[in-house]
Parts: sequence; structure tokens; C-alpha cells
Amino acid sequence: MPRYRLTIEYDGRGFVGWQRQNNGPSIQAALEAALAPMTTVPPLVYGAGRTDAGVHALGQVAHVDLEPARALDVVRDAANFRLKPTAIAVLEVEAVDDDFHARFSATERRYLYRILNRRPPATFDRGRVWHVAPQLDAEVMATAAEILVGRHDFTTFRAAECQAKSPVKTLDRLEVAQRGAEIEVTAVARSFLHHQVRSLVGSLKRVGEGAWSRDDLAAALAARDRTACGPVAPADGLYLVSVGYDPVTG
Amino acid sequence: MPRYRLTIEYDGRGFVGWQRQNNGPSIQAALEAALAPMTTVPPLVYGAGRTDAGVHALGQVAHVDLEPARALDVVRDAANFRLKPTAIAVLEVEAVDDDFHARFSATERRYLYRILNRRPPATFDRGRVWHVAPQLDAEVMATAAEILVGRHDFTTFRAAECQAKSPVKTLDRLEVAQRGAEIEVTAVARSFLHHQVRSLVGSLKRVGEGAWSRDDLAAALAARDRTACGPVAPADGLYLVSVGYDPVTG
Repeated sequence: MPRYRLTIEYDGRGFVGWQRQNNGPSIQAALEAALAPMTTVPPLVYGAGRTDAGVHALGQVAHVDLEPARALDVVRDAANFRLKPTAIAVLEVEAVDDDFHARFSATERRYLYRILNRRPPATFDRGRVWHVAPQLDAEVMATAAEILVGRHDFTTFRAAECQAKSPVKTLDRLEVAQRGAEIEVTAVARSFLHHQVRSLVGSLKRVGEGAWSRDDLAAALAARDRTACGPVAPADGLYLVSVGYDPVTG
Repeated sequence: MPRYRLTIEYDGRGFVGWQRQNNGPSIQAALEAALAPMTTVPPLVYGAGRTDAGVHALGQVAHVDLEPARALDVVRDAANFRLKPTAIAVLEVEAVDDDFHARFSATERRYLYRILNRRPPATFDRGRVWHVAPQLDAEVMATAAEILVGRHDFTTFRAAECQAKSPVKTLDRLEVAQRGAEIEVTAVARSFLHHQVRSLVGSLKRVGEGAWSRDDLAAALAARDRTACGPVAPADGLYLVSVGYDPVTG
């Protein structure tokens, strides 16, 4: 069957997360319902990252098979038309080979975590940032973040319910930047453990507020113990920015 | 009485506008209710710009008298605590002389108009951008905008209900910039006519989609006739960015 790669943007508020569940609306189910009228077989949408409840995406990637084949613009526009009551939009539709798998072919995932660091609460970005009123030192956070980059056993920063076979992951980038009243944390890796980004950000916040030193953070990593992690940052500030794939060669 | 200058941010969706009215919640009334417990006389909040229903602010300025005097941080934090159910936040509170008037002392108003120019509808920014699906030419819009800069009779771009004495205004800046999928229009003047920015943007959009030439825009301005204006852009995309005041000298 013709296979399509979808690039998807969504505001995760009000969703139980990417994955179809019985307890509320999911991104996956909304996409499948929007695509259903375009195919003779019930569509199954596979996402690259199974974002949690309340987590957002600027560039989630998914694939779906549709029969018969459709023009790419028609798939995008018809899906968006049916998605209109929701805060989900299909940004791009591409035709891909049938060995492309949004999840298993992915070689890079990029997340952004937004902290609104000011006394006044959020207005426009309520539910889309983590509001932290006490002043954080972004430079100290940026320096401390370097400790976490590289190949490590990330057991400390892993949810109890994480299903990954190994807690060892390679974190390619973990950068902290101040932009006005916001502190933006960028995390890039081939793949992440469950709650890893939010756990890393929660611990970096401890460093930023002066509760932890760099050494405390290094000790937390070395402990390989979930209880050594700082409080996990809320879903609100987390965005799946993009998913990378190896270019098709020769 | 001690006078305070407030810098205010708000998401205008769900409000009837800045000004207190009988038909729904206003920003002014919400601020006055939030400040009331801090003063022995009912507070009157005067804003620099009376934004319409659905128009947003990143830096609205207002003044209010409070009796007795209060610490600036206390005013800000207490107001924000009471404003929390709303999408209004007081960013800054400063003490000012009692001849400071948010509206009459203002020497510059800066507006931003955001157009989301892509096929897929808005997700995060629904109600906060004007979604225009057909592709606009931002460069052509930028060049055409230059026609409107300067001192002109802006009758064409003025709401029928505008109460200004004269339709002659000096538009100091009108700039169009493409940022990713967004086209941002910045307008700066000492003061604006009612609906002037939205009228200018609506006509620039006609130019951007190729329906109007530069000459058509010049003719619309020269007509000094409301019916020569393009369709007025919706409130959704409009933000009062900042209000300028002469520095206190001497």
C-alpha cells in the first residue's frame, strides 16, 4: 500500500498523549479518524515519539498507509479540514518507501523544554511553559548540563514505568539558553528513556536555583538511582521539535 | 495619592476589550477588581491604548492611584495573584509622579500584527494570529508599506465609529517581515485612528496576494474614503507591543 510520512504539530493540552487510550482523546486516534475517509482500510498511524499527556509537538513524524494512493496536498488538506476542531495540524505529507517506519527508522529526536522564569504567571503560554518564579541562573545550568552529555547509564533520570531494555543512552546535546524571560533547554539524542528530558530539566532547575551544585548533579547521575533525581518537570513545557532520519542513499 | 505605572500583558480572547463595558469582561475591570483590596478608594485604571475585543497586549501601559502607598513588588504580586484565573499579568509596577498619565503622556505606540501564512491552520496560536492560507508575497508587501509611512489623511483606514478629531496622523514605521511561516507587520506612531492598524494590514494583504498593485494602495490612501479600504484584518493577530514616554528630564 502507498505509504505516507506526516509531519505534525499539536498543542498537547487536553490530550491523554500521542497513543490511543481508553481514558480520553489521543493525537493518534484523532489523526486516524481524520484519515479514515481517505482509505479503504482502517488507517494505522505510527508515531516516532509517543509523547505523554500534555506534551506538545512542533514536528512529530508519523507514517500511515492509505489505499488507494492520493495526491500529497489532498491528504494534508483533507486531514487538516477534519482536524479543525482540534489543536492538531498536519504540516507536511510526503510519499515514502514501504520500508520507512516513523519510529524504527528515526536516528535523532530533538526536544525543547521551555521554562518561563519570571515572577508574573504565564498568560499566552499557560500550559505551554513551566512557570518558575524564583530566578534561575541559566549560565550555571548550561555549564552543569555538560556533565550529562554523552553515553551514560541514565537510570536516575528514567521513569519507573520505562520499558526500554537498557538505561544506557547517548545524549548528543543538552543546551541551556536564556531568551528574554525564558530559559530554553534543548535535548538531542537518537532516543530517550521515558520521562528522561523532564527528569533532566527538573534536576537542572535544582542547579539553577542553587539547591544543587554541579557536583550534586554529577553524583545524581552516578547514583543510577531514581530516587536521586530532582522533581520531574511538568509536561507543559515539553515540545518534540523534530525527528531525524538518515538520508536515503544510493 | 501615590500613582503607579503598570506594564500589562494579556491574551485578549474572551474579553470585550480594554475598556469596561456592560456586555462582558474587560481588561480594565479585571485590573480594577484585582487592585481594589489594596486601596481605600475604588481604583481607576487608565490605559494608554483602548484595545478592541480580541486584541492582545505584550506591553500595555496603565496608571492607577492607590492609597496608602505600597511596595512595588507587593502591588505586582498581589495583583497577579488575584488575576490568576484570567490571562492577564502585570509585568512591572513603577512609582510615577502624579502628572503622569498613561494615555495623554504617551508619545509612541507600537503594534505588531501576526499573519500565519501557510495552508495548515493554526494550532498553538489559534485566535492569536490571522491565518491566511494562500501564499502572500511579504517583500511586495514591505515595499508597498512604504507608501503609507509619513503624515497622511488616513480616512480610508479609519473605522466609521472613530472618535479622533482629525484623520491626519503621522505613521512613523510600517514594516513587513517574513519569519518562517509568519508575516509580521510592525506599526509605530504617536497615536493611531480606530481600526487603523487592522485596516492597513487588511489592505497590505490585498497587495501580498496580488489583488492590489502598489498603485492601487496609493490610490486607496489618496481616496480618503472608507469604502476604498481592503477588508479589515481580524482582531486575532493584533498586539499592542509597547507604549513610549518621553524620558523625565531636568
